[in-house]
Amino acid sequence: MSLLLDGLAASSGITIAPARLLVGSDLSIKKQHTADENHEVARLHDSFALSRTELQALSQQVHHRLGQRAVTIIDTQIAILDDPTLQNKIIDRINSHHDTAEWAVKKIEDYYLNIFEHKNDNDYLYARATALRDVTKRILSHLLNVPLPDPALLDHRAIFVADNITPTDTAQFNKRYVAGIVTTNGGRTSHFTIMSKTLALPAVVGVKNATTLIHDGDMLIVDGIHGKVIVDPTNDEIEHYRLLAGKFAQEQQKWGALKDKQTVSADGRRFEVAANVGTFADIIDAQEDGAEGIGLLRTEFLYMNREELPDEEQQFTAYKRFVAAMNQQHVVARTLDIGGDKKLGMVKLPREANPYLGFRAIRIGLARPEILRPQLRALLRSSVYGRLAIMFPMIATIEEFKQARAILDEEKDKLEKEGYQVAKNIEVGMMLEIPAVAVMAEHFAKYVDFFSIGSNDLVQYMFAVDRGNQEVAYLYQELHPAVLRMVRRVIEAAHAEGKWIGMCGEMASNPIAVPLLMAMGLDEFSMNSSQILRIRSLINQLSTRKLQPLVHRAINAETAANVRKLVEEYVPEVKI
Amino acid sequence: MSLLLDGLAASSGITIAPARLLVGSDLSIKKQHTADENHEVARLHDSFALSRTELQALSQQVHHRLGQRAVTIIDTQIAILDDPTLQNKIIDRINSHHDTAEWAVKKIEDYYLNIFEHKNDNDYLYARATALRDVTKRILSHLLNVPLPDPALLDHRAIFVADNITPTDTAQFNKRYVAGIVTTNGGRTSHFTIMSKTLALPAVVGVKNATTLIHDGDMLIVDGIHGKVIVDPTNDEIEHYRLLAGKFAQEQQKWGALKDKQTVSADGRRFEVAANVGTFADIIDAQEDGAEGIGLLRTEFLYMNREELPDEEQQFTAYKRFVAAMNQQHVVARTLDIGGDKKLGMVKLPREANPYLGFRAIRIGLARPEILRPQLRALLRSSVYGRLAIMFPMIATIEEFKQARAILDEEKDKLEKEGYQVAKNIEVGMMLEIPAVAVMAEHFAKYVDFFSIGSNDLVQYMFAVDRGNQEVAYLYQELHPAVLRMVRRVIEAAHAEGKWIGMCGEMASNPIAVPLLMAMGLDEFSMNSSQILRIRSLINQLSTRKLQPLVHRAINAETAANVRKLVEEYVPEVKI
Repeated sequence: MSLLLDGLAASSGITIAPARLLVGSDLSIKKQHTADENHEVARLHDSFALSRTELQALSQQVHHRLGQRAVTIIDTQIAILDDPTLQNKIIDRINSHHDTAEWAVKKIEDYYLNIFEHKNDNDYLYARATALRDVTKRILSHLLNVPLPDPALLDHRAIFVADNITPTDTAQFNKRYVAGIVTTNGGRTSHFTIMSKTLALPAVVGVKNATTLIHDGDMLIVDGIHGKVIVDPTNDEIEHYRLLAGKFAQEQQKWGALKDKQTVSADGRRFEVAANVGTFADIIDAQEDGAEGIGLLRTEFLYMNREELPDEEQQFTAYKRFVAAMNQQHVVARTLDIGGDKKLGMVKLPREANPYLGFRAIRIGLARPEILRPQLRALLRSSVYGRLAIMFPMIATIEEFKQARAILDEEKDKLEKEGYQVAKNIEVGMMLEIPAVAVMAEHFAKYVDFFSIGSNDLVQYMFAVDRGNQEVAYLYQELHPAVLRMVRRVIEAAHAEGKWIGMCGEMASNPIAVPLLMAMGLDEFSMNSSQILRIRSLINQLSTRKLQPLVHRAINAETAANVRKLVEEYVPEVKI
Repeated sequence: MSLLLDGLAASSGITIAPARLLVGSDLSIKKQHTADENHEVARLHDSFALSRTELQALSQQVHHRLGQRAVTIIDTQIAILDDPTLQNKIIDRINSHHDTAEWAVKKIEDYYLNIFEHKNDNDYLYARATALRDVTKRILSHLLNVPLPDPALLDHRAIFVADNITPTDTAQFNKRYVAGIVTTNGGRTSHFTIMSKTLALPAVVGVKNATTLIHDGDMLIVDGIHGKVIVDPTNDEIEHYRLLAGKFAQEQQKWGALKDKQTVSADGRRFEVAANVGTFADIIDAQEDGAEGIGLLRTEFLYMNREELPDEEQQFTAYKRFVAAMNQQHVVARTLDIGGDKKLGMVKLPREANPYLGFRAIRIGLARPEILRPQLRALLRSSVYGRLAIMFPMIATIEEFKQARAILDEEKDKLEKEGYQVAKNIEVGMMLEIPAVAVMAEHFAKYVDFFSIGSNDLVQYMFAVDRGNQEVAYLYQELHPAVLRMVRRVIEAAHAEGKWIGMCGEMASNPIAVPLLMAMGLDEFSMNSSQILRIRSLINQLSTRKLQPLVHRAINAETAANVRKLVEEYVPEVKI
């Protein structure tokens, strides 16, 4: 009999393939002394040499298959292996403490991790610590003669089943063979989940005990649309899901044809489906995936992996490239959104008991205008190369928006006096992600040119839940009628003042939410570009007029489960 | 010329007196070796003996003036001094490391703090760490011959000016001489602020640089109503504030007469002003201070300073005492509200990135019914001794309330089958402190018997701000129109279903908020009992009918500052 496991639908699509477990090997070791230090040093040398050979092979494979980003991850590990300090420290330890090679590796790893992690608000050191962990794991695997699970060694189509998928794992994936992913950890909006959407792999996360209930080679059906995993499916089940998968693939085929058309509902209402981007590579994807604009340009990328803040010129060069690349399609740039779970080494932030309720985003920008002003200047200067809009994240009060806007206007005046060109009528808006703002939306609507609803944060605050926290993630309910009520309220408030309103959280690409959002009049949907054509196709098939009774019923429902059921009954199109 | 310092009004009243700085002595020491260990050990013995004499004197003074709670704090310190392990460890360190006595004390303190603080989710160890710090500070003060600032030595009326006031400090206060308090740290809802309200001392907190700008003996005016401190006031200023203080004192006189009357507005609407309590001593205070009931019984006290969870019998004995003491006045007991910033040693909670958005309160209760069920049984059994109501904290969804209520009903049935008496018609309600619940209030109102608005948390989530975080505390705005809108909405929703609704956050005793809350129809105001008569007096003077235009304008204001101004203009009574 087949076994049905429930999880969270993390990335759409259906896949049928055997399981491949990716479970950490047992590398536990005990303190042990040796009388023969030379022997231990020789073993250490061997393990370094074997690790280097493996990593070099991996680097080449990865280069062909996954490109430069993945190569960098592997090459960083090779550099750590080749750095004589690490090896010498381990050898010293063997000689002075008579440790076995394993134990010395462990102690020196601890020594470095301790240094790195006491400064874990520093991105660079955090990355170093991750790389060092991966390197010592590999060295230990040779010393202990225990093979590491190596996702790069996969040579047939299979579904990875793991507790966690790390960035290093993903770098090693051979996209051709990875058919899908099942993990025990991870919520709908975790780092990995968002990444798996980018890879467009069917994935189900948060499947309890997956790595113990599923065995290597078990046949699996991963239904990334409904968040189900079937272990050892019956022939009937395989047949049923093959049909479904086929239908889904057919749909996908049709999507390509939409790329150069406008997004118009069945009753003729025009919508804009845009992309969330964080790097220039994302812009290329966005264009290939049929984005009608950039609804969210995350500017944090410019600040990553650096020792100092980027200056106005460096920022200008980058923004200009983005804005120009999108031609006359709009690009909504969000000013620096750090704090919360996003730390930067060069901006010292206080340690906080609750960072999500702390010093972040525009709160930092207003308190430290020396960070905000150069960014605004760079954005304003780039505005003449296309159609730029600027928005401020985490605005909570009218005073904050007025203050931020005043700084922007000041810098604009200064630039013009200094002889720079700035586009006329740059739209200036704000993220709407704090409940108090939704309640006061009609006041804000007088001052802003547009809103972008940050549904991820809005839902977190509305339910007092950190979506990254496994214990309470079930309370993160973006389909809840409370959320729909807030969203409808802010859309009406924006339109009453003649302003447009978009959404750039995960909810904007949730097929259950989209019919409701379009019927409520949301103007712009911004999302990971891999989801764009799917959502454009869905919008094309639906009539906003016919959806009105559904909105009415959803708004008056009691629970998120009721809403899901209502939509699935009323709009069969969302099921695929 | 006088100097005006701004801060946060933490506790009402006006006081005029000289300043007394309570600033930590310089006890910094360096690593130093000695050749004469015996001399160092002798110095150590002397410092222990002197510290013991001081603490014993303190214990006696404190006993007369402040009662048992303060004595316990001091006696714990004496016990630490008398424990031979501590002294022996320090002596060993002197002999083995040739350390000076100071350095050895410091190292052994570090050793213990390291043990205690690695387990800082344990209340008992946290208290031990605090006591150890106070003891070693005293020992070092004798070794270094630097006197400690000793709040107990105050022998004339003065205003304490400090960076922080610790619980040990407060235990040593002679209430007769402490005229008021000014601190540089602390927000409106910090531990100390809440405590100073209990002491009914005028206090202004968050006054930047107070300990450097104010000198010992400077004449001060502390205006705890408006959050102002005047250093070296002019004669005119002293005259003005004497008048104000006199008026305030007159008001206070009148309050006493209200104790045995009902709380009725000028236009005849009846309100209930109740107390928030956390211990049995608070119940005595509540009765003396004119409470008309207990609007919030925090049950956490039963779980504090213990190694194991209290069993049903222990809880029953305690609840029965509370319920019986209040006679037929209502007692609203809240089920265990841990998590967030409240940890218990015996309930292992996960480490969380954002505890306020995490596993807390009813979320724990529903996940671990073995904690919730005995508490509910004990509460139900105590119900026959008075008028008990039960409420669940941090409810976010209808499903959660139904689940909690079902557990309650199950235990009630079981108790009756086991032959226990349970009161008929116990009211079962919930805290309303999560924005999504406010949005869905008309649905919840069908299922609950009553609501109690937890304004502290509600405001935090509405503005995405941790009120304990200094960097962003300015965004904690309980007078904001967004908060008023939410509160009006939930009051209307409750009344539409014929349910009563109270509030037990700080907002319920904020004199600017009270006129708005009563005009919106809030039925019950629950607060620290020291504030009760003041608020009852205010309610008596006001007409809910006449306040309606004010509510209308406040709801439509743009900012919290606007609301404050409107109320102060419209209701001059709130100024005193």
